Amino acid sequence: EQVAKLLELKAQLGTEEGKHKFVLKTPKGTRDYNPKQMAIREKVFNIIISTFKRHGAEVIDTPVFELKETLTGKYGEDSKLIYDLKDQGGELLSLRYDLTVPFARYLAMNKITNIKRYHIAKVYRRDNPAMTRGRYREFYQCDFDIAGQFDPMIPDAECLKIVHEILSGLQIGDFLIKVNDRRILDGMFAVCGVPDSKFRTICSTVDKLDKATWEDVKSEMVGEKGLSREAADRIGEYVQLHGGLGLIEQLLQDPKLSQNKLAQEGLGDMKLLFEYLTLFGIADKISFDLSLARGLDYYTGVIYEAILLQPRNAHKEEPVSVGSVAGGGRYDGLVGMFDPKGRKVPCVGVSIGIERIFSIMEQKVEASEEKIRTTETQVLVAAAQKKLLEERLKLISELWDSGIKAEMLYKKNPKLLNQLQYCEDNGIPLVAIIGEQELKDGVVKLRVVATREEIDVRRENLVEEIKRRTCQP
Amino acid sequence: EQVAKLLELKAQLGTEEGKHKFVLKTPKGTRDYNPKQMAIREKVFNIIISTFKRHGAEVIDTPVFELKETLTGKYGEDSKLIYDLKDQGGELLSLRYDLTVPFARYLAMNKITNIKRYHIAKVYRRDNPAMTRGRYREFYQCDFDIAGQFDPMIPDAECLKIVHEILSGLQIGDFLIKVNDRRILDGMFAVCGVPDSKFRTICSTVDKLDKATWEDVKSEMVGEKGLSREAADRIGEYVQLHGGLGLIEQLLQDPKLSQNKLAQEGLGDMKLLFEYLTLFGIADKISFDLSLARGLDYYTGVIYEAILLQPRNAHKEEPVSVGSVAGGGRYDGLVGMFDPKGRKVPCVGVSIGIERIFSIMEQKVEASEEKIRTTETQVLVAAAQKKLLEERLKLISELWDSGIKAEMLYKKNPKLLNQLQYCEDNGIPLVAIIGEQELKDGVVKLRVVATREEIDVRRENLVEEIKRRTCQP
Repeated sequence: EQVAKLLELKAQLGTEEGKHKFVLKTPKGTRDYNPKQMAIREKVFNIIISTFKRHGAEVIDTPVFELKETLTGKYGEDSKLIYDLKDQGGELLSLRYDLTVPFARYLAMNKITNIKRYHIAKVYRRDNPAMTRGRYREFYQCDFDIAGQFDPMIPDAECLKIVHEILSGLQIGDFLIKVNDRRILDGMFAVCGVPDSKFRTICSTVDKLDKATWEDVKSEMVGEKGLSREAADRIGEYVQLHGGLGLIEQLLQDPKLSQNKLAQEGLGDMKLLFEYLTLFGIADKISFDLSLARGLDYYTGVIYEAILLQPRNAHKEEPVSVGSVAGGGRYDGLVGMFDPKGRKVPCVGVSIGIERIFSIMEQKVEASEEKIRTTETQVLVAAAQKKLLEERLKLISELWDSGIKAEMLYKKNPKLLNQLQYCEDNGIPLVAIIGEQELKDGVVKLRVVATREEIDVRRENLVEEIKRRTCQP
Repeated sequence: EQVAKLLELKAQLGTEEGKHKFVLKTPKGTRDYNPKQMAIREKVFNIIISTFKRHGAEVIDTPVFELKETLTGKYGEDSKLIYDLKDQGGELLSLRYDLTVPFARYLAMNKITNIKRYHIAKVYRRDNPAMTRGRYREFYQCDFDIAGQFDPMIPDAECLKIVHEILSGLQIGDFLIKVNDRRILDGMFAVCGVPDSKFRTICSTVDKLDKATWEDVKSEMVGEKGLSREAADRIGEYVQLHGGLGLIEQLLQDPKLSQNKLAQEGLGDMKLLFEYLTLFGIADKISFDLSLARGLDYYTGVIYEAILLQPRNAHKEEPVSVGSVAGGGRYDGLVGMFDPKGRKVPCVGVSIGIERIFSIMEQKVEASEEKIRTTETQVLVAAAQKKLLEERLKLISELWDSGIKAEMLYKKNPKLLNQLQYCEDNGIPLVAIIGEQELKDGVVKLRVVATREEIDVRRENLVEEIKRRTCQP
C-alpha cells in the first residue's frame, strides 16, 4: 500500500518515466452530483423557485466570471477568498463570489432602478471547506432581491416571509430567523467607544459569535484588532441580547443608544418590521439578535440569517451540523458604487444556502430508505423472442413521437428476463412486449411490473393505455 | 467624446488621481440574460429536457472547473482555448471546455460502465466570439450520452433520433444532420497517402470545410501541414461526396476504400445506422457526408453535426447565420484514458449548441411582436383608499399561504390608478381590491384586468375564485 502511495505521489509530481497517471478526483472543495443527488436537488429547487415565482419574481442570469475590478472592494476581509483566472492575455477576471455584486453591476450597467428578481447559480470561494457539513468551494446560491425606492420595511418584510415559506416548505425541521440592523450595530459600536475606522473589522469579529464563545471573540477584538478592553466589555453586554418587540422598545429607551441617531433609525425600522411580520403571521420565528453581524461589507440596514434549530438525525453517528441556511439584508449603497454618477438604487434581498439543505435532505432520504427514481420512464419496449430488434425500434419510435417516455435495451436479442429485471431495477412501471403472435394479431402485450398483470392492447390504443396507467399525480 | 474615451482609458489604467472608475461591462464574449431572454431560455430548455427524459436519461452535474491535467491532451489543437485559473496555491485548475471530458472523468472515477445521462451546463472557450451570430466564450451545452457495451449503432441511432426530436420540437426551420465516421475518415486518409502521424491535424483541416472553400482547405493542407499535393487532391475527391444508402454501397465497392479495413468497418456500421434511422422514420433528414470531420481528438467512430438549412428571418437586415446547432459522436477511448488500468467504456453522445438556437428564438419573438410575460403573477393585491397597508399585507399573506402567486406595490398608500397600471404593464390578469366597504362586508372586489369586469367575492371564496380564473393551460 505504501508503494502504491509512493507511485501515486510520483505520478503527481510528473516524473518522466512511463505513462502519466491521472489523479482521478474533482478539485478540492467541489463534488459531482450523481443522479440520485440530482433528483433531490431538483426537488429542493422546485420548492424554492415556486416560492420566488409566487412572489412575482422575474429571473436573470449573469456570467460565472466578472472583471476582477468589479469584485474589488466589496467583500472586506473575505476578498482573499476570491478565485482569480490566470492572465492569458486580455481582461483580468475572477469567479463570482456571490450573486449580489453581479446583480448590482447588472442594475447599474442597464440603468435599472426597479426590479424583483431571483437568480440561482453557483458561486466560488477559496475557503477551507468542511464538505461533510455541506460547505464547499463551489456551491449554489438561490438569491431573491427587490431593488427600488419604496416605503420602509415592506420589501424587507417580504424577504423574511419568503425565507419562512421556503424553510417551512422544505420540511427540514424547526428554524429561527435572526434579525439585526447594521445601523443598530454601528450605533452600538459608537456608544461603546469603538473608533469609526474599526467599525467594519469589529463587525467581522462579532460575526464569529455563532461559532465562537464571547471570550474568544473578545480576545480577538482586544488582541488582534487593538480595541480597548472597556469597549469590548461594553459590546459584550449588548451582543448577548435577543428578543422581540419588547427588546426593541427597551433599546429605544436605552440611555446610551437613544442618544445615537443611527441606532434610533435602525430601531425604529426594526419595530416597523416586526409589525409587518406579525401581520404576515411569522413573528414567532423571528428573533431580534444583537450578536448577528454578517461579514460582508455592503450591508447598510436590516440583516438576517436563518438557522436550523436541531439536527434532523440527532441519533445518527454523523449528525448534520446546525448552521445558517439563509441570509441576507439591505444594501442601499452597492449599486451606486457601480454607477458613474453614484446614483443609488436601494436593494434588499435574501440568499438561500442550499448546500446544507441538500446534505440534510440526502441524509433524510437515506435514513428513510425511500427509493428515489432517477428517471421518469413510463414503459420499456421489450421482445419476447429473438430477431425482433426492428420491431422494437419501430414501436419505441411511435411511442416517443406520441410523447411517451420509453426505453429499450440496446441489445439485438435481449432475454425477456433481463428486460423485466431492468424494469425492476429502474422502477419502470410498464413493459410493452412484442412477440410473433402479437405482431400477427396487431396487439402489444402490456405488463404491469408491480402486479405482473398482462393484457393485450391493440396497437392503435397503446399510447392511450400507457398514458392512462401512468398519469402523473 | 474623445475626451470621454481618454478618461475611460485613464480609469482603466488605474491612475492614482481621483476616484477609481469601474468599466461597466461583462467580460469579453459573455453576456447577461435579462428576464425576457430567460423566459425564452426556459422554453428552449423545457423542450430539450423533456426530450432527454422521454428517452429515459438520468441527470448529473460536475464542477465548473477540473484539475488542469484532466483536460490535458483531450482537445488537440483547441487546447489553447482552455481557460486556466490563477495559481493561488493548491491545485492547478481549468474551466471545463465541454461536458464530455468531465463525463468521462466521472465515469472512470466512479467505475460506472453503464449509464444514460444528460447534463446541461455552461462551458468555457477563449475563442474569438462572434456574439451577433450566437457564439460566446461562455455558453451552454446540453449533452446527452449513452455509455456502455452494447450492440452496434443502436445507441448511436437513438442520439440522432433525439437531435431530430429536439430540432423538430423547437420549430426553428428546416435542418439537416450530417453523418460521417472517424474510421471512414482515417481509412480515406490512409488510402489517399496521408502519413499516420498527420491524420489528426489533416482531420482538423478538413473540419474547416463548412466555413472555407476546398481551395483554402487544400492550401492549408499543403502549405501549413506539409501534405503532398497529390494526397490533397485525392482527399478532395472524397470529401465532396454526400448522400445516403446509395453512397454507402458505392463506397463499400470503392476500389481503394474496399481495401482498407477501418473504412470497411465504418461503412458497414454506417449502413446499419441508416437502416435503424429508416425504422425511426428520420433517414430523409440525414446526409452521409465525407467532408464532416469534427475537430475534437477523442472521437473514434460515428460523428454527426446538425445544421439549420435556412435562416428564419432571411428578409431581416441581420440574418442569423446558418450554422451547426448540434453535434456529437462516438468516443470509445476517452474513459479509458482516465482509468488506471485503461479499461474502456464505449460512449456515444450528442451536444445541443443552444446559444444559436436562443439567438434564433429571440429574433423570432422580436419579429412576431409577441408579448412575453416574465412573471407568473396571478393577482395584484390593491387598495381603493389610503391607510390600508396593513389590510393588504394580511390579505396577500393569506394568498401566498394558499399557493396563489400574488404581488402588491411596496408603497404605504399607492394610487388605485398606479396599481391598475402595474397590472397592465406586467400582464397580471386579476386585481383583488380592498376598500373600507369591502372590509365591512367581508368581501374583496375582484377585477379582471382585460375586461374591466368587477365582482365582489366573499373573502373565504377568494382563493378558489382566483384559481378558477387563472388555471394554467
